[in-house]
Amino acid sequence: MVNRQIQLAQYPDGIPTEQDFRMVDSPRPVPEAEQVLCRTRWLSLDPYMRSQIAGRHLSGSVGPGDVMRGETVSEVVESGSPAFKAGELVRCMGGWQQWSLHDAGELSAVHPGIQPPSYALSLLGMTGLTAWAGMVWQAGVQAGDRVLIPAVTGGVGAAAAQFCRLRGAAVIGLAGGPEKCRHAVQELGVSACIDRHAEDIPARLSELFPDGIDVYFDLVGGELLTQASERLALHGRVVLCGLMSEYNQAQRAPGPPPGFWIRARAVVTGLVVYDYEDRREEFVRQCLPDLEAGRLRQREDLSHGLDSAPAAFCRLMRGENFGKVIVALD
Amino acid sequence: MVNRQIQLAQYPDGIPTEQDFRMVDSPRPVPEAEQVLCRTRWLSLDPYMRSQIAGRHLSGSVGPGDVMRGETVSEVVESGSPAFKAGELVRCMGGWQQWSLHDAGELSAVHPGIQPPSYALSLLGMTGLTAWAGMVWQAGVQAGDRVLIPAVTGGVGAAAAQFCRLRGAAVIGLAGGPEKCRHAVQELGVSACIDRHAEDIPARLSELFPDGIDVYFDLVGGELLTQASERLALHGRVVLCGLMSEYNQAQRAPGPPPGFWIRARAVVTGLVVYDYEDRREEFVRQCLPDLEAGRLRQREDLSHGLDSAPAAFCRLMRGENFGKVIVALD
Repeated sequence: MVNRQIQLAQYPDGIPTEQDFRMVDSPRPVPEAEQVLCRTRWLSLDPYMRSQIAGRHLSGSVGPGDVMRGETVSEVVESGSPAFKAGELVRCMGGWQQWSLHDAGELSAVHPGIQPPSYALSLLGMTGLTAWAGMVWQAGVQAGDRVLIPAVTGGVGAAAAQFCRLRGAAVIGLAGGPEKCRHAVQELGVSACIDRHAEDIPARLSELFPDGIDVYFDLVGGELLTQASERLALHGRVVLCGLMSEYNQAQRAPGPPPGFWIRARAVVTGLVVYDYEDRREEFVRQCLPDLEAGRLRQREDLSHGLDSAPAAFCRLMRGENFGKVIVALD
Repeated sequence: MVNRQIQLAQYPDGIPTEQDFRMVDSPRPVPEAEQVLCRTRWLSLDPYMRSQIAGRHLSGSVGPGDVMRGETVSEVVESGSPAFKAGELVRCMGGWQQWSLHDAGELSAVHPGIQPPSYALSLLGMTGLTAWAGMVWQAGVQAGDRVLIPAVTGGVGAAAAQFCRLRGAAVIGLAGGPEKCRHAVQELGVSACIDRHAEDIPARLSELFPDGIDVYFDLVGGELLTQASERLALHGRVVLCGLMSEYNQAQRAPGPPPGFWIRARAVVTGLVVYDYEDRREEFVRQCLPDLEAGRLRQREDLSHGLDSAPAAFCRLMRGENFGKVIVALD
């Protein structure tokens, strides 16, 4: 029995291409006592993976010849642990492969209320937890806040926009292209969405935030961080979370002139979602009622079959995904 | 009777020189009903004045032909207000001149416990309040914190170093030259002081903060902010307060790469001391016992006579002052 895997073939030069990955067929792993054998059902593809390849991510590096890592919802097939039964769905770091072996401590049961179960990788999973930690726990978004969210149809952005809206904040999003902007307004409930491909971003920000930005969720770094910082309202909050704009660059770009933050008496905080792992249950408990009532939704950019993962990841890196990127292994 | 004043003569090109200022003799002002006539006794010279000249300061701009502004300890000479009596010392925005006229609301009595009274312009005044707001109220410095303070023999820096030390923190300072560094260690009680003219700053920071910087009080902006941010400990705090490194430049310099702050889960806050005006009494009350017991001290860089102000200000701008710059009008 084979275990198809996807490895990094070579370090990408800038934005990754499919040639930077290769498929290999390894033997299907055999569980030892107490181990759990899992079959991958859904694989999450996320921007931080580019940072792992660049050797700049907190969670460690991925180099040529390594199987690409990634979070999955997997099905337990054989279990040597009393904690998990065959047929059960679990969340784990299954990686870009069909089969994975784990100790029970590396697995978390997927809450049965999370439907479809792939949402455990997005809205009710790590991207949702990131958004909740940033907007609710760090920025303390409340009714009346004027919030700016880039990449608003992406995994973290879409979750953040909805959490803020449900708390009574007014959300302005940015997205690439009219179709995504329409989705943000109609499905995610943002007040307005700036098309970053077609519009003059600084001019639109000044127009849409005449009294300044109360909260900016920085998922991208780069120029937008400076443009948002320049327009912060008094006591504005900035949550620094992602650096999409520079994951594909060799050099770290500088940040905004600190004078903007002094003037606004800003509170700027760095967010690493791993710090909130012990509050995941609390987050899921607070969001499940909104999910079940249809007040929260998640557009998935779904591709089918493990072989589709490299192309899907490259589209994500080019900003061409529309929704949370998930690979379904049927 | 004349009122000698110092005006800005022309916009400086980079670091100011004495030729950018001029002395003029105006008639001594005559108080109207309810006004208070004050004679300047001590004038505070501060880096923010360069920012006023550049038109980039919150408190407004100073242009050619304007009398330079500044905080003073002045003596009431004639008072039309029941709140102040002739002979009393007050703190006010007297400016770079011998005489000034005020409404009573613009004056604050100098607490008699503040000795010498010029300390109402430094350690127990605006620079002290800035240091207290930054280190105590914003950064929450406590025992065991490892704190980095630039310009540590300057007004804000020296106050901050002492407040942190009295709270049980370990302070590393930076200053220009061996004499200032010796003063910082022997008089201000810092653990070590880096000579920014002679030492390799990044190497020394790595050596002196093997476990990272818990609190960085940013009084200077520029490269040091980036070097400190790169070495922040987990949950490090940065208080953004001043931009000495760019007050004399035409362009705003960018800030540190935001990735440093994400990695540290940093909390970065902007500080504007004017926001704390209503807590000034609380600050003075907390510091007076330490001042009276000799646990707090302030080195003043004192020059005599109003005519000495331009040269003293230019020395401050070149970083050649040693202590809080005060002009005594004898």
